[in-house]
Amino acid sequence: MSKKVIGIDLGGTSVKLAILSAQGEIQKQWSIETNILNDGVAIVPDIIESIQEQIDLLNLSKEDFYGIGMGSPGKVDAQAKTVIGAYNLNWSSLQEVGKAFEQAFGLPFYIDNDANVAALGEQWKGAGNGQPDVVMFTLGTGVGGGIVVDHQLVRGLAGTAGEVGHMVVDYDHGFDCTCGNKGCLETVASATGIVKLARKYSNEFAGDSTIKARIDRGDQVTAKDIFDAAKDSDKFSEHVVDQFARYLGIATSHIANILNPSIIVIGGGVSAAGNYLLDKIDSYYRQYCFPQVRDVTKLKLATIGNDAGIIGAARLVPTDLD
Amino acid sequence: MSKKVIGIDLGGTSVKLAILSAQGEIQKQWSIETNILNDGVAIVPDIIESIQEQIDLLNLSKEDFYGIGMGSPGKVDAQAKTVIGAYNLNWSSLQEVGKAFEQAFGLPFYIDNDANVAALGEQWKGAGNGQPDVVMFTLGTGVGGGIVVDHQLVRGLAGTAGEVGHMVVDYDHGFDCTCGNKGCLETVASATGIVKLARKYSNEFAGDSTIKARIDRGDQVTAKDIFDAAKDSDKFSEHVVDQFARYLGIATSHIANILNPSIIVIGGGVSAAGNYLLDKIDSYYRQYCFPQVRDVTKLKLATIGNDAGIIGAARLVPTDLD
Repeated sequence: MSKKVIGIDLGGTSVKLAILSAQGEIQKQWSIETNILNDGVAIVPDIIESIQEQIDLLNLSKEDFYGIGMGSPGKVDAQAKTVIGAYNLNWSSLQEVGKAFEQAFGLPFYIDNDANVAALGEQWKGAGNGQPDVVMFTLGTGVGGGIVVDHQLVRGLAGTAGEVGHMVVDYDHGFDCTCGNKGCLETVASATGIVKLARKYSNEFAGDSTIKARIDRGDQVTAKDIFDAAKDSDKFSEHVVDQFARYLGIATSHIANILNPSIIVIGGGVSAAGNYLLDKIDSYYRQYCFPQVRDVTKLKLATIGNDAGIIGAARLVPTDLD
Repeated sequence: MSKKVIGIDLGGTSVKLAILSAQGEIQKQWSIETNILNDGVAIVPDIIESIQEQIDLLNLSKEDFYGIGMGSPGKVDAQAKTVIGAYNLNWSSLQEVGKAFEQAFGLPFYIDNDANVAALGEQWKGAGNGQPDVVMFTLGTGVGGGIVVDHQLVRGLAGTAGEVGHMVVDYDHGFDCTCGNKGCLETVASATGIVKLARKYSNEFAGDSTIKARIDRGDQVTAKDIFDAAKDSDKFSEHVVDQFARYLGIATSHIANILNPSIIVIGGGVSAAGNYLLDKIDSYYRQYCFPQVRDVTKLKLATIGNDAGIIGAARLVPTDLD
């Protein structure tokens, strides 16, 4: 029987787990709740117990696995295999995740942050289609990213490579960012960013718009509301989505000019807006991109969605195929 | 005797050549003129003859070398070892450079474009100090670049990675770029770009300035004139250099956020403005950079200048030390 890998995608509400072949096929998939009580002290023991149960259930043993890979929120030290500052897990102090797994299973253990791991998953088995050079933008509450060059994650000196959400794209009148800067991509190209853009433009827009009317009344609007209205030809929302797409077109053109990857993957919750959004980003991307690059580096929507985490985590583990 | 490498830096007026140790120490250095007559047909034969002469002179043979590395202007295909579109060599058609060298010497031959090779030289033996992740900006007539990740050049799918000069940094009122776009970094942060900035601002500036007076009279000014005047506290020139530095601060911050390299090297003819320029770029870099990155990724001036080409070319050749 060929050896397998275990992939773990640790999130704030649930932990996704899977046993995969060395080729990245999911053979067994399950999940458990994330218990964030008491500073998240039970999280790692719960995962270890759950994996041990599955291994026993399937009559497998340590020798059947190359190792275990994990994606985690927070600041991950891939070398030391530790996590700190994962606030949605209540992990504010340093967590020796690697030590716990290595002691429990005696198997090689690898960890990286969730944005990097999702990029690796999409590069390997998703929109990246196994191409060596792939970059991913994850558009959610914030904007994350991951850079894969020659099949390897680029981590950088302090492990902060891939912080594409903090490229400043509005130099002059930028919104404040949680990082302390102004005008970061994340402030305009995330689920919260598009709402900020809508509020800003609502003062300038004169025509009729259901979304503008709701903003003016002080009602909550979401990114989905704005995209839905834009798709229904609400002129105000079309303008907001257009500006949102323009900033992403600028940012993706920078990536293409710097790295010339095969594919730039657009994923995360906001990418549910689909080809409607992708086409708008692509139009600005092509405008700003170096002409020799724009027909080579392609923008694509993420394809494996929620599985990117476990697949990318599994990819962290070296196998005989590498 | 330990095996050596040969490094070739091919330029429009001269070819720099060297025999180096596997550690990158220059043991013998010489140069020949570049004969660009007749579509540059003599260039490669001249280089081959010159290398053969030196090898004979030093009583060396093929067995004393790991191989030959070369940096070339134009569009280089590192895989096919060909060059096309090197207009300052009069090479407009495809040149089978690799075949010629391999036939002449029976040694492994490697080639890349001059900006990549200079980046590799600075990464290995210059300001990069041998750190694995280093990015170089070359500020000359245009703006070139090279990206080194994990000691390897990043080439990208079409070999155009490192085109940092074509990141669009002025979205709104950008100058036309030779690439067909508007507002590329190269249009504002090169030797020609700073003169364009000066012409633009000369209409808006009201005070006294020797540089503005010369522009208004229709006299030629150079990048060096503007930097010299700025260093002499000419207010107009200070403003021009400040804007020039701001665009470079933005572009270097993008690189730092995306790749988090150890060092971003500022080289090329314009970098002769030295620490005066570097400090101004650094101040904007720090303003725009993700806070977790700005104290990690450092900006430095290039240190090996004209030797970066031959040293980087030599570095293309794999040795027993790799």
